[in-house]
Amino acid sequence: MNDLFLRACRREPVERVPVWFMRQAGRALPEYRAIREKAEMFEIIRTPELAAEVTLQPVRRLGVDAAILFSDIVAPLEATGVGVELREGIGPVIDRPFRGADDLARLRPPDAGDFGHVIETIRILRRELDVPLIGFAGAPFTLASYLVEGGPTRTYARTKALMYREPETWAALLDRLADVSLASLRAQVDAGAAAVQLFDSWAGVLAPADYERAVLPASRKVLTGLADTRVPRIHFGVGTGELLRLMAGAGADVVGVDWRVPLDRARERVGDGVAVQGNLDPAACLAPWDVVAGAARDVLQRNAGRPGHVFNLGHGVLPETNPDTLARLVELVHEEGRGGG
Amino acid sequence: MNDLFLRACRREPVERVPVWFMRQAGRALPEYRAIREKAEMFEIIRTPELAAEVTLQPVRRLGVDAAILFSDIVAPLEATGVGVELREGIGPVIDRPFRGADDLARLRPPDAGDFGHVIETIRILRRELDVPLIGFAGAPFTLASYLVEGGPTRTYARTKALMYREPETWAALLDRLADVSLASLRAQVDAGAAAVQLFDSWAGVLAPADYERAVLPASRKVLTGLADTRVPRIHFGVGTGELLRLMAGAGADVVGVDWRVPLDRARERVGDGVAVQGNLDPAACLAPWDVVAGAARDVLQRNAGRPGHVFNLGHGVLPETNPDTLARLVELVHEEGRGGG
Repeated sequence: MNDLFLRACRREPVERVPVWFMRQAGRALPEYRAIREKAEMFEIIRTPELAAEVTLQPVRRLGVDAAILFSDIVAPLEATGVGVELREGIGPVIDRPFRGADDLARLRPPDAGDFGHVIETIRILRRELDVPLIGFAGAPFTLASYLVEGGPTRTYARTKALMYREPETWAALLDRLADVSLASLRAQVDAGAAAVQLFDSWAGVLAPADYERAVLPASRKVLTGLADTRVPRIHFGVGTGELLRLMAGAGADVVGVDWRVPLDRARERVGDGVAVQGNLDPAACLAPWDVVAGAARDVLQRNAGRPGHVFNLGHGVLPETNPDTLARLVELVHEEGRGGG
Repeated sequence: MNDLFLRACRREPVERVPVWFMRQAGRALPEYRAIREKAEMFEIIRTPELAAEVTLQPVRRLGVDAAILFSDIVAPLEATGVGVELREGIGPVIDRPFRGADDLARLRPPDAGDFGHVIETIRILRRELDVPLIGFAGAPFTLASYLVEGGPTRTYARTKALMYREPETWAALLDRLADVSLASLRAQVDAGAAAVQLFDSWAGVLAPADYERAVLPASRKVLTGLADTRVPRIHFGVGTGELLRLMAGAGADVVGVDWRVPLDRARERVGDGVAVQGNLDPAACLAPWDVVAGAARDVLQRNAGRPGHVFNLGHGVLPETNPDTLARLVELVHEEGRGGG
């Protein structure tokens, strides 16, 4: 078993910097698109053989040091009885958006049976994988933003309005969603996931004071709720430059950094107690190879060989990315990345 | 003439902190919506009496210390012969998006006649206003992103792909757009605008190294090209926490700060040589009044009474904002804001 990724998460010295890509299983791969032609997103997620196959595709093709379970950050919402649809190019759309205190009663607590297909997928993957498997879930704020907005938004105005106008309802909602997120991650770890990533994808739309008061307690509940499992916990969101210190303090072993914050600055903000993951601009992978290579080397140089670096993009792989570029990127990181080894 | 705003831009002591709001002329005001029922956006912009009326509405109702010309950041693109449409709730949509070097020939240089309606609007406003008028335009990167994407995007993948793949075409495009932006701002100042704001709304999607190499030179051309006019130059974009120092160095007198970066941190990044503008979360204006007041006081306290603060939101007024909240906010800033006076 290649355990470079797990050692880097624990800030142990490694011979070479491990690398994986957010959304490495996805539309950039022709073998994924072939499966998607025959099955919807949720159909793949709920069919263990398909979900396992799609999880394995990037490991085979790209040579990454970790696999990430094929799922969606909103998948745990299904366990609460909320109707969610994943629309291509739009994202999750919610049947009946959350509008206020009365809607709390509609969210039922998850139980073990809700994650049966995930457990079965992981069981298949444990036989097939020779790299660690990362489980994941959406964080309470990001799940809440989907529930409240109902569909895509640029402003998150409805979500923030609820947060400001009904602080008790908001706190109750986030606490419930923390339970959902935690139950999903715990089921994944129990089944064999060797690490987890809590995606607070949209937390970066919040001012730090709002994040600290109204969001951090729920995220902390999820992350500290996994402490006894001893698996590395990664905490990530985009546009979170001003939140990195708080996100590290929520109980993370690794903080994911988007491409806007150079890794040396990110290191200053999160301190020495956590590892960092990132952070090449996903759009840089659309560039000619010499530009990609230069940008990747810049990421490695900014980490300056310190232990505790997992190479990744600063957000998910863009669908228009050439997979050959990703494969070469893995080679470059393996050849040139030194992580305190 | 109330010149608080101009003095704060110049970092002179003021008796009270001046305040205006980005997109103060807009859908939050019923008197604006009444006009919009009868006329499209570009029709208002091109009809001096209507544009002047809409510019005056928030000054009358809210008591702000500056007016901003009613226009759109992409309006200067029209002067290049590009077909632009402003779709409600979507934003600018471009007729034939910019795809590569061949499209450079389609962009004609602007000439003085292109801004006739703007000049006439400002002539009307000079008679009516007793606060300074701010002129504005989109910055080269933001204009380019609209031209290249053609419509709304979350990833700016096409724009960045062009920037990485065809650096010469990209540089030529941004240089042309700098000329357009500069010509528009110069026409506005010549007609009587007392300050300008260069909106690089989407520059925050760039990593600092990309911004510095591929965008900053064009923005600097615009801002330094106005140095001889002596009007204060404001430079603003959202999500630009990591770019603030560079944006200040581009030739700005004032740097606009979005709500993600507390003003004390923003001050550390931009240094003492420039003023700051901002930075209440626009969504905070959807909160009950005591929450709005608390958040506004926090903004004032973080500036700590230093000269060179223009109070504003961290981005435009949201359409669902109650204008009474904005009026009370102006009163609060006037009563409690001290700017080194």
